[in-house]
Amino acid sequence: MSNVNPIEIISPDQFRKIPWKNGKGETLELAVSEGGDVNGFEWRLSIASVTEDGEFSDFSGYWRNLVLIEGQGIDLTHDLEYTDNLREILEFTTFDGGSKTCGQLVDGPIKDFNIMTKQGAYIPQVSTFHQLDSLLLDESVLNFIYALDNGELALHLGDFQQDVPVGHLVQINPYEEGDEELGIAVAGKNLIVISFYPPQD
Amino acid sequence: MSNVNPIEIISPDQFRKIPWKNGKGETLELAVSEGGDVNGFEWRLSIASVTEDGEFSDFSGYWRNLVLIEGQGIDLTHDLEYTDNLREILEFTTFDGGSKTCGQLVDGPIKDFNIMTKQGAYIPQVSTFHQLDSLLLDESVLNFIYALDNGELALHLGDFQQDVPVGHLVQINPYEEGDEELGIAVAGKNLIVISFYPPQD
Repeated sequence: MSNVNPIEIISPDQFRKIPWKNGKGETLELAVSEGGDVNGFEWRLSIASVTEDGEFSDFSGYWRNLVLIEGQGIDLTHDLEYTDNLREILEFTTFDGGSKTCGQLVDGPIKDFNIMTKQGAYIPQVSTFHQLDSLLLDESVLNFIYALDNGELALHLGDFQQDVPVGHLVQINPYEEGDEELGIAVAGKNLIVISFYPPQD
Repeated sequence: MSNVNPIEIISPDQFRKIPWKNGKGETLELAVSEGGDVNGFEWRLSIASVTEDGEFSDFSGYWRNLVLIEGQGIDLTHDLEYTDNLREILEFTTFDGGSKTCGQLVDGPIKDFNIMTKQGAYIPQVSTFHQLDSLLLDESVLNFIYALDNGELALHLGDFQQDVPVGHLVQINPYEEGDEELGIAVAGKNLIVISFYPPQD
């Protein structure tokens, strides 16, 4: 048995406020890889408010996934070349953190949920659910689950059910050699599920 | 190798219009178990419009899953006891087809996607996605995937990608003894994914 708890529930009072690299705002950091800070990490999950149009911070060397979780929408233009139009809650886009990205609000402030991964370290897979009877997680990799404020989240292990309050982040650590797979299934509404896969050869 | 094609894409011109058992409307039947008709089937997938308030047909002996796919919403009251309020597109509810269910429209007609399964024959698992990078299907069971009109759907098998037009139904047949698992993954937007599991002892 490893010493790592397979299921960690991170409550909002454990989240950390950190200033943006461009100084124009604040990010709520939900979780970050061990030893990570704003200057370097393997992965980071955070929530930010965008209250005005402007350029995003440079995160060269990282992939970014940005999920709209509140507000009317935002247009993201990357290197003046192409634009992502996020309009619906739980819609997301993937882009290179090294591109020059400008955000233009559609109608008022928005909140976004950010998944950043160091390029070459992880391949993130993101799913956003309206509603979910049961999703069996791949426990060989690192998984995170987050329910929006109007969502619901429960973890099932066989007959055991654990309800998770909205606004909390669930971290499912990959099993290590000698661990048994638990058969963790996720159920709920308005969920973001993230799995970090190792890079493929 | 079995003779069953593992992936079937069912186009809208293969769907069948059939009258409701209560005579008050029509259902578009997308797929039904072999030999099934309105009087009996193992499973059935269909789309119906509800244009006025009223009682649902009796489907004693079946489980029903009803997904809101168009319109402002509907309230379903079962046996005068409890009410499901479906308001958001891709929200769904599960109920016993034998209960006396009354539907009350919130604001104008709606369309719903129906999953019916004979009790004791299958346990349906339903997921509705806003957006999906990749979901690996459990190929040991019968799976269906359907993208809403404003959705997107692609199937991935290794490096191979097959785009599926919206409005088509994808049926993934369970592998049989001697078959190899294909590693079919689903990606897209505004999707309904259904898996029919065998009953548990």
